[in-house]
Formats: sequence, structure tokens, C-alpha cells
Amino acid sequence: MIPEKIKFGCLTKKGMAEVHERSLPQLKADELLVKQEVCNICTTDYQQWQGLREHQGYPMAGGHECSGIVVDKGSDIGNTFEVGDRVSILYDYCGICSQCKMGEITNCENIKMFGKNYSNEYYGLFGFATYFIRKAKSFVKMNPKLRPEEAAFVEPLGSVLQNMKKLRLRPGKDTVVVIGAGTMGLLNAAVARAMGGRVIVSEMMDKKIDISRRMGFEVINAKEEDPVEKVMEFTNDLGADVVILAVGATAANNQALKMIKKRDAKISLFAAGYPAPQMDIDPNMIHYKKIEVIGTFGSSLEDYNDAAGMLNEKRIDVSLLIEERISLDKIQEAFEKANSNNYRISVMLQQKTV
Amino acid sequence: MIPEKIKFGCLTKKGMAEVHERSLPQLKADELLVKQEVCNICTTDYQQWQGLREHQGYPMAGGHECSGIVVDKGSDIGNTFEVGDRVSILYDYCGICSQCKMGEITNCENIKMFGKNYSNEYYGLFGFATYFIRKAKSFVKMNPKLRPEEAAFVEPLGSVLQNMKKLRLRPGKDTVVVIGAGTMGLLNAAVARAMGGRVIVSEMMDKKIDISRRMGFEVINAKEEDPVEKVMEFTNDLGADVVILAVGATAANNQALKMIKKRDAKISLFAAGYPAPQMDIDPNMIHYKKIEVIGTFGSSLEDYNDAAGMLNEKRIDVSLLIEERISLDKIQEAFEKANSNNYRISVMLQQKTV
Amino acid sequence: MIPEKIKFGCLTKKGMAEVHERSLPQLKADELLVKQEVCNICTTDYQQWQGLREHQGYPMAGGHECSGIVVDKGSDIGNTFEVGDRVSILYDYCGICSQCKMGEITNCENIKMFGKNYSNEYYGLFGFATYFIRKAKSFVKMNPKLRPEEAAFVEPLGSVLQNMKKLRLRPGKDTVVVIGAGTMGLLNAAVARAMGGRVIVSEMMDKKIDISRRMGFEVINAKEEDPVEKVMEFTNDLGADVVILAVGATAANNQALKMIKKRDAKISLFAAGYPAPQMDIDPNMIHYKKIEVIGTFGSSLEDYNDAAGMLNEKRIDVSLLIEERISLDKIQEAFEKANSNNYRISVMLQQKTV
Amino acid sequence: MIPEKIKFGCLTKKGMAEVHERSLPQLKADELLVKQEVCNICTTDYQQWQGLREHQGYPMAGGHECSGIVVDKGSDIGNTFEVGDRVSILYDYCGICSQCKMGEITNCENIKMFGKNYSNEYYGLFGFATYFIRKAKSFVKMNPKLRPEEAAFVEPLGSVLQNMKKLRLRPGKDTVVVIGAGTMGLLNAAVARAMGGRVIVSEMMDKKIDISRRMGFEVINAKEEDPVEKVMEFTNDLGADVVILAVGATAANNQALKMIKKRDAKISLFAAGYPAPQMDIDPNMIHYKKIEVIGTFGSSLEDYNDAAGMLNEKRIDVSLLIEERISLDKIQEAFEKANSNNYRISVMLQQKTV
Repeated sequence: MIPEKIKFGCLTKKGMAEVHERSLPQLKADELLVKQEVCNICTTDYQQWQGLREHQGYPMAGGHECSGIVVDKGSDIGNTFEVGDRVSILYDYCGICSQCKMGEITNCENIKMFGKNYSNEYYGLFGFATYFIRKAKSFVKMNPKLRPEEAAFVEPLGSVLQNMKKLRLRPGKDTVVVIGAGTMGLLNAAVARAMGGRVIVSEMMDKKIDISRRMGFEVINAKEEDPVEKVMEFTNDLGADVVILAVGATAANNQALKMIKKRDAKISLFAAGYPAPQMDIDPNMIHYKKIEVIGTFGSSLEDYNDAAGMLNEKRIDVSLLIEERISLDKIQEAFEKANSNNYRISVMLQQKTV
Repeated sequence: MIPEKIKFGCLTKKGMAEVHERSLPQLKADELLVKQEVCNICTTDYQQWQGLREHQGYPMAGGHECSGIVVDKGSDIGNTFEVGDRVSILYDYCGICSQCKMGEITNCENIKMFGKNYSNEYYGLFGFATYFIRKAKSFVKMNPKLRPEEAAFVEPLGSVLQNMKKLRLRPGKDTVVVIGAGTMGLLNAAVARAMGGRVIVSEMMDKKIDISRRMGFEVINAKEEDPVEKVMEFTNDLGADVVILAVGATAANNQALKMIKKRDAKISLFAAGYPAPQMDIDPNMIHYKKIEVIGTFGSSLEDYNDAAGMLNEKRIDVSLLIEERISLDKIQEAFEKANSNNYRISVMLQQKTV
Repeated sequence: MIPEKIKFGCLTKKGMAEVHERSLPQLKADELLVKQEVCNICTTDYQQWQGLREHQGYPMAGGHECSGIVVDKGSDIGNTFEVGDRVSILYDYCGICSQCKMGEITNCENIKMFGKNYSNEYYGLFGFATYFIRKAKSFVKMNPKLRPEEAAFVEPLGSVLQNMKKLRLRPGKDTVVVIGAGTMGLLNAAVARAMGGRVIVSEMMDKKIDISRRMGFEVINAKEEDPVEKVMEFTNDLGADVVILAVGATAANNQALKMIKKRDAKISLFAAGYPAPQMDIDPNMIHYKKIEVIGTFGSSLEDYNDAAGMLNEKRIDVSLLIEERISLDKIQEAFEKANSNNYRISVMLQQKTV
Repeated sequence: MIPEKIKFGCLTKKGMAEVHERSLPQLKADELLVKQEVCNICTTDYQQWQGLREHQGYPMAGGHECSGIVVDKGSDIGNTFEVGDRVSILYDYCGICSQCKMGEITNCENIKMFGKNYSNEYYGLFGFATYFIRKAKSFVKMNPKLRPEEAAFVEPLGSVLQNMKKLRLRPGKDTVVVIGAGTMGLLNAAVARAMGGRVIVSEMMDKKIDISRRMGFEVINAKEEDPVEKVMEFTNDLGADVVILAVGATAANNQALKMIKKRDAKISLFAAGYPAPQMDIDPNMIHYKKIEVIGTFGSSLEDYNDAAGMLNEKRIDVSLLIEERISLDKIQEAFEKANSNNYRISVMLQQKTV
């Protein structure tokens, strides 16, 4: 039974997450109706809650790392999705503009990533809604054997695959240092390993060091050890082939420049920082050491598709990256926890005990 | 003024092209209404007319190398297309399935390439129609300074770009031999040159040899010279890095195996042949000489987008690949000419003198 | 103590391996003197013993999968190698010709792979010699913690890395079927997995099926199951992205064509076959299915270097690919065993018990 | 007749170039004796003369962009080089270390680029010598139909090819802006065009603007026009795909950041600057705009080999990049001219009138 009114979480101002209600619109020919299971809270979500990225507007019906079950489909969908399928969603995109034709939907020229795409009142994708209707082209099919909160990792994993594509990781050859063992850091680490990289994780916080070790990585305790020295030790003084900055911090940026190999290293600026970090770039050093400083953000359609494939085929295991499950009616508590150096907080949208 | 009835060319049986009429459907929110200017006759079109590819079904409202002007747009298109824009069309695709998400729309799992996608009665894309309505996502914008029949080269050029992607041409380094100087052969030659290849064209027919020379290529007259010997002569006995087979013929296939360099050459099977050709593949030779035999067919969304870009920026010149312009009411004559070893016959859909 | 006379294994005719003696030449400025530890018997070696590849000439002082310890170095070596280092050798190459400059030393224009490069009397690289002198540029440094017979895997591993480079394996994405679980098949399988591929091995022989399972691969018992059906079952009817033919046999070649995915699959002809196999290539099918048939043979300098790195960093484990250790004085017995569907037979050159 | 004493140009202190004499050493088995024709003066050479890069040491028998004719060969060379061949030289490298095995000879671990490799007294490669002896592996063969001063472009062209490899230029697609139309800028421009890029050159100096136009490039007069605005105008407000900084200057670096396209642009730091330039890198901007800042320096063996191929096959024309020919006895004058915003000054080593 699809309720007349759906519930959804939204941010109404800095530090305030609430549950609101609205009606579901009519299902169109090219759309799917999905009963949402979970939506994980992303950095983008809780940094707005913290007041660090308030440019995105209020009220923000955010949330974009979610998964659910198809309960109805429009008449023009073809055989790709059937009622009962588990799905995960992508960012919105028009599919018409030149950027979308290249698959670069994060750059879509017609549809804003967190615009008022589903309401005149609310910004955001309504990820924390109990049900939603979206164009079928914005879903990927997920393996029903995954837990819903694992299936919800398609969007963040897509951005990690974009990073790997930009980095052109050399499988079986590269040694990758990931600085920062938060959710995105360890997701990068897990993917780099699954793609044939040797991975070293550098982190300061005890809990994150512990999870990094449980996931099987070589770990530097950056509170007690000098990360640059340790990387040199781990690599026979050769230095890292690749450094992925999964934190946006000046100190980390400059560490990266010192722990790389003599020539031809790559540094990925995977994370933005608020407040904005610095980086001591000396153009002559970049030139002589042939360094590549590579920015990465968002995902292409292919990245999302590949992310679904990696999760569905269990090529990586994200189970340790889920900190806690909290039901939608406690969404304010969920945001508080997301704000406390935790891994993903998973908001359960159907109130069942998991 | 958009007429109540549109006219369109179609194949009703082997050897028979006719002009039929039908009404235009209603314009939907995600669609464009286009006043078509021209549609060039492709090999797929005239080989059905010849009876060589009749598996595609009758009546066939074919034609897929066309261009026109946007005369109306639906409400959900965004700013990508405006009334008055020149556009060219792509193959149909759902945009929903996994293959479309990878951009591989030629492999679309929901929509058949020449299916009955626009009518219960006719197969085909209605390329030879005076007007048509299509989803906006199936168009690319074209430079108004191009002639319409040049703008219509997006689809064949897209398939050539797919070929180049598969071949991973090494710009500034590779010597490419193209066997067969028909439209698709010279299009491959033009693109290989624009991408930094040295290009040698091998052809038997005087007219095509002449056009190849006028386009500035090094040419082998395969009727009078031995193509294998000539390639060795042109390359200081090194042989070709790449051979593109733009004809589907056993003799050409086996020539290719003999004119390549000693190691690491690539051979592209760009063209199907009717009747089906053979190729003397010795697996041990493929192994020891490290040959790559590469099949290629169709285009990705990115290929189409890039094809539009190349034409729009005039990075290649296709003007010599247009043999003649014939108005729609003489479509049977147009097919007769297309069937006579000519370059593209361009069917003019608005009856104006060009 | 370096003996005045060194001993070495050689093939004097079909089916006959003997131990001969000769003097060591003088060490030159650009050379290393190496006390050999082991040399594994390669397919090339025992197929000559079997009389299948006799074109290589007798007497053949073959063997080229070996490792040892540097005992003296010339004056122009620099700091790359020191006395006491464990090393493994590469094929001979001039380093001067254009192919060598590209790193493609297997294609060297001046030095024949198994020519009379070290003697007027014997062909071959003297891999089964107790000591030898070679140019320093033909060695790579190995991790002393490896067993000598593992360090001897540089050459075969190099050829597998060449294969992977030609295949452009997509890490985290591709499903790879390896047909044939001999030494080279499982080496390909191990590398494909280490580079982020999902690997399925197809094999008929019980012992090899068992070793494949012990190495952790998904395995098809091709004696009891239909390999094509099983691959479809393993891949949800999608088929393999990549098939590596690690046997040179007609039946396997044709299986490969049937177990691949609908579009864009790659088939690697990794192994030559004696007698020469066939393959049912239909050029139209290659074209429409966009198949790549890729030959691969030998290794580049970079491949060898990377192979040493992979072994040294223990990114793959080859221990199960070593069947037995046999001392040099029993080299005829070693060849008999190599000839009986076994994994690598390792010839111990210093007669110690391992 | 090979003279007992050879003459060579060298820098004895800041601002002082002199001609000295020495004997030729004995030819060894792996060496070539070359009668040098010309050596062009590189930036590295004249910036030492200017006192900007004096860390390289005096007396500096520099010069490394040279070509000549083989007059004798050692016994171990094979058939790659014959007496009478025109050749050009590469940087020194050991060929033994891991970097050389990867082809990255600029990173050679045993031999310093401008060390005292040929003399206990002089630094440098003796490029300005009338004759020299070098290992055969350090030469590439050149087309005798080239002028000697064109054949001498192998080394600088190699560094441009390294740059292109790092940039992964997309042929037929990318628009490349080159800032700075000196020798290296226009060499980059010529190669980018030969590899299928659209090229726009930005320059302030009248003479260089004129040469850029004569070479057929789209040109921005940066003294009179705003380069950022002009690039936007040239590209329909899309911005450049790639910017190559062929000058090491803060203003140019920051222009580059403003003239690139919105997402996924690449900026190459091709040139070092003396004094050291700055660049206003904002890590958040690099992240969100997915910019790649790429350092490049030196060449691999493959780059040199490819550079020889490009010149030999006349895929680019460097004739306008040669400013003047001056004989060795006037080497101080040659350096004065090289120091005056000129293109390459070619030092003629055999005193003939060209």
C-alpha cells in the first residue's frame, strides 16, 4: 500500500533536521516509483547541517546515497527495471546536453545537482523520503543479496571510480597512499586495492586506524608517526606512486608533496575542504619532478554503472563503513551522529528494525 | 507552416523506393519537431534496396544520415536546443539500460536500431521524412555554416570515431592503410589524417582513386599495382602499423595480413561484407606477430558528440564525399544512383534547389 | 670459489638432455658474473626435447627462467647491482636498435633470441649453467626473501604482463576466463586477479583443476561440464569480457568465440600450438560483435621490470606452480618430468638439497 | 681524415664561451665515432651563459642538440648503424638501472645528465665538438634529406613528445593553447597540431607573433589583447581543453587557470622559470573543476625514437625555428645571439658555409 502522503527528512536551517510530509506526484511513462529502504548521510548533507556549505539553500530535502525497491513503473521503461527490483539512484541529469552525451552528468548544463528539481518549495533530491518517483534513467539495478545500506553506496563509489579513472592507477604496480580514513578515504583505499594497487592508509584518529586495520590495509598512525618517513620506510625509500587526499587540509596537501616518488607521481585532490585549504605548489618542482596534481569530483554515468557492478559482484566490501542505522523519525539524532567523526549513518526509511 | 501531412521515402520491396504520406504525431515535452533538410543514402539503405540485407523488414522507412532545423520544442528540453538550430540525429536508444549508461547506444537493450519505433506499420527512423518528431536526447547541434548534406555526416563519422577509439591510433607515429576508397573508406582516411596518422589509400576504381588523390592522400592503384608491395615500398619495408578494411572482401582481408609490420600491427574489420567474406587467420601467426584483429561497428554517444564537434569545427572536409543531390520525389532515382559505386547521394527533403 | 670449468645442461638431440662443461670467459666492464641457483624448464625447452620445435637448432644450451647470486661485477656497472644481490635474467637484446629503444627487446633486430650468442658451438642462453657471465643490462634485481625458483619466474611473468598490457584489462570490472590451467594459464589467472579481474579457469585435467582451486579461482571442469554453458552461468548470461587462451588448440579457440559477451569482448591468443591450431574466424561476426582477437608473445623491458616488481613485492604467489626440484646431474629426468603435464620443474644448479 | 685533436665549444664562466681542444679517446666495441655537423644552442646552454643556472658547473662542455655523420663503428654494434649514416644523439644513460629499463633515461640512477661523463676536467656532453665518440645506444638514425640543424631537433622534440604523452591529447577533439612562442612553444604547437589538436598560440613579441602566424597557427597578440578573453572568444566561451605553459612565469601560470574550460582541463608546466615563478593554486578549485596540473621534463627512450621518426618522416617542419647558423670559432657570438630572444642558433661544427 502506497500511502497518500510520504514522509521525508529535510534541513530547515543550520543544525536542524526535520521530518516533513507531502503528496506523491503522478507516475509518468518514463518514471519509476520506488519504496525507499535507506539513505546514508553524506558529507555534503552534514556539512550543510553544520553550516559549512549553506550556499545550497533551505529548506534542503537532501540525501542522495539511497536504495529501495521498485513498486511501480511507467509504460515506456522497457525491460530494464521490473517491480520488485532493488535499485539505487544517481544524481539528476537531463540526458540531452553535450555534457550528458559524454556521460559527464555531474556537469549537466540543464539540471542543477541540488536544485529545486522535485518541488517548488524544497531543494534537493528527496533522498530521505519514504517513497519517490524519478526518471528510470536515474536508477541502477542492485543485487538483492546486498543490504540496503550497502546498495546505497553507488553514488560515493561512483565518485571514487571517477577518481581512479583520472588517476589511471597501474594495477599490480602502483603503491597508493590514502590520507584520511573516513568513509571516502577507506572507500578509495578499498577500490585502489580491488584494482590491483598496494594501499597504505594514513590517519590520526584511533577508531579510524582500527577500522583501516580491520579492512586489511597497511596503516600509518599519523598522530604518533611521521607519515612522510613511514611512507619512505614502507616503500624502500622510493616514495608513493599515488597519493589520494581524502581530506581537504593544508597539512595533508603538503605531506603529499613530500611522500611521493622522485618522478612521475600523481596526487589526487579528492576532497574539498571547508574552510578552504592551501597547497605549497612550486611550479618548478612540479615541472622537474613531473608531478601530476589531479582534481576529481562527481561521477560519470559509466562510473555509476561500474559502481553498481562492483557492489553487485561484491568486488569490494563496504560493511565496515556503516556506523549505525537510525530510523527516519530520529533524523536530527542521525545528523548529530554523522557530525561526530563517524562512518556512514544510515537513515532507515521504512522504520523496520534491521 | 508545418503541413498536416508529411511525406517520407520508404522501401516497399527489393528495388522499390516510394514516397508515402502520414500525419505528424503530437509533440511531447521531451521532444523536438524538426524540419528536415537532407538525408544521405547509406550502404545499409541501398543494400536493402539491392536485396542484400532484406532481414530488416518492409516497408522500411529508412534513412538515418540526416539533418534539419528545429521548428518546435517540448517544455522539458532546457537550453540545449532552440527553435532555428540546425541539428543532426542519432540512432534511437532508451537511455535507461546498462549499455546506454555506458554510452554504448548501438547496443541498446530496449530499442531496436531499425525497429518499428515510430509507427505500427513502418520499420525505420523516417530519415527521408520532410518533418519528424524525436526525443531531444537523440539530436546533436550542428554549425549553421555547414551545408545540410555535410551536417548529415554525423552518424557515419561517429562510426569512424568508434573505429579510431578501438584502434587507439598513435598520433604523429602510425602509418595507416585504408583499403577501399568508398565513402566510409575515405571518411576513415580523413579522420585518421586529422588525428595525426600518415594515410595510404588502396583502391581499384578510377573515380575513387581520383577523389582519394584530390583529398590529398597517398594512393595505391590496386588494379595496376600490387598493394602489398606498394605498402612495403611506401614504408621502407617496415609495413603498415594499422590497416583499416573499409570493404568486406576476402582478398582485401588477406592483403591486410601481408602488408602489416612485423610485430604489433592492428587490423580493423570496419565493414561487413555481403556475401560474407573469409579471412585466413592462422592463430600461431597472430600470436607470434602479436597482431590485433579488431571488429568495430556503430557508435557510442560520445562518438556522435565528437563527430558533431569535428564537423562543426571543420576539422575534416567531407564535401568531396557527396556525389549528387536529388529531391525526395525522385527517391527511386536516388537509390539507383546510390547503387552505382557512387559517393553519398543526398536526398533533398524540402525540394529547394541547392 | 669459482670453478675453472662450469657445468651446463643442453639438448643434444630430440629426447636427449646432457650435462656438458666449458670454461668461463673473462668478465668485461659492463658484465656481471652470476652463480646460478636454479633454472626452471619452460615449454619452449621441453617442446624442443619432444621434437616439436626443433627449428631452434642443436646443441641447445637452453634454459632462460633462472635466478642466481652476483659474485663479481665489471667496472662500468654503477650502483644498480652489488655482489651478493639475487638476480634474474632477461632475454638477450642489443639495446641499440629501434625496437630495443622502444623497449621491445623480444623484437631485437641484432640479437637472436636463442642464437649462438655465447658460444660458437652451442645455441641458447646457458640458463642451465652453474655460473654465467652476462651484460648487466640483462638482469633484474630480486628480493632475497623469495625462493630461487620463484625468482626465476621473471621471464614467464613478463610475457603475462605483456599480455595484460595488450588486453588493457579493466580493473574492478572485467571477468576473465583462462582456458588451460598449466603454468602459463595459472600465471595469467594469478596476474589477472592481482590486477582487479574476476577470474574463471577452465581445465580438463584433475591435478590442474585441483591446483586451480587451491589458488582460489572459480574453476570449470571441462571434462565434465560444458565450458561455454558454465561461463554463461557464472556471468548471468552476459558472457566473458576477456578470454585468455593459454593453450594452442582449435577446440579452445572456438570455445572462446562462444563464451564471450555480446559486444566488445577480447580474446588473447597467448599460446602457440604445435601442431598449429585453427580458429573459425568469421570476419562479419568480428565486425558486428566488435571482437578484438589479440596476439601476444614475449615481453618488453618494462614488462620484465614490472614482473620483478610484482614478485619482489609478493603481489602474486607462484609457489604452487613449482612441481618439483631436481638437481642438474639428473637433467634428463627433469625433462622427462617436464614432459608429463607437470607444472614447472626446477633444475637446481648448485646441487644443494632445498 | 680524423684530426688528432678535436675542437669543442665550452663555457668557462658566466658570459664566456670559448673553443678548446683535446684528443679523441680510443673507439670501443659498443661505440660510434661521429663527425659532428651542427649543435643548436638550447635554453639550458644559454641560461648557464647568462648565469641563471650556474649550479651545473664550469667548465661546461655543453651542447646536446646536435647531429652528425658516423665515420667509424665498434665491432659490437650490429647492423643498426653504418658508416655514412646521419645520426642525432640522446642524453647519456646507463641502460642498466630500473629507470632506464622503464625507458625513463632522464631519471637514470647511474649517470648524471650533465656530469663529467667524458672527461675528468669538463662537465657536459661535448655537443659543440667537431668529433665525438659515444655509445651506439645513445644515437638515433636520421633521414639524410633533412638539414643537419633540423636533425638536431631530436632532443627538444623528444621532450615535447613526453609532454604530449603526459597530456594524453585527444586527437581531433582538443583545443590547445600554447603560451609563449619561443622555440619550445612553437615546437609544442607544431606537435600538438600534427597530433590532431587545434592550436592557439599566445605571445607578446612581434617577431614571435609573426613566426607563429607564418607557421599557420591561430595567434593571440598578448601585448594588445587579453589572452583569457581571446581564448574564450576563439572557443565559443568554452575555454581551452589544454594549456601548455612554454614559459616559466607567474602571470602566464595564472592566465592558464582562467582560460581553461569549466571541467576536466589540463595544464602542462612544460618550462621551468628562473627566477622561480608562482602559481595561484586553490586546491578546492582544482577539485571542483577537476583540473589536472601536469609537470613534464626530459624524455624517455621511446620519446627520442618517436622524435626521430617524426622528423625523418617530415610530420612536422622545424625550419622556421632556426634563427641563424654561426661557425664554431664564433661561439661567443652565437651565445650572444641565443641570448637575444631568438629562435635556435645553430653552431656549425665543420666550418662549411651552409
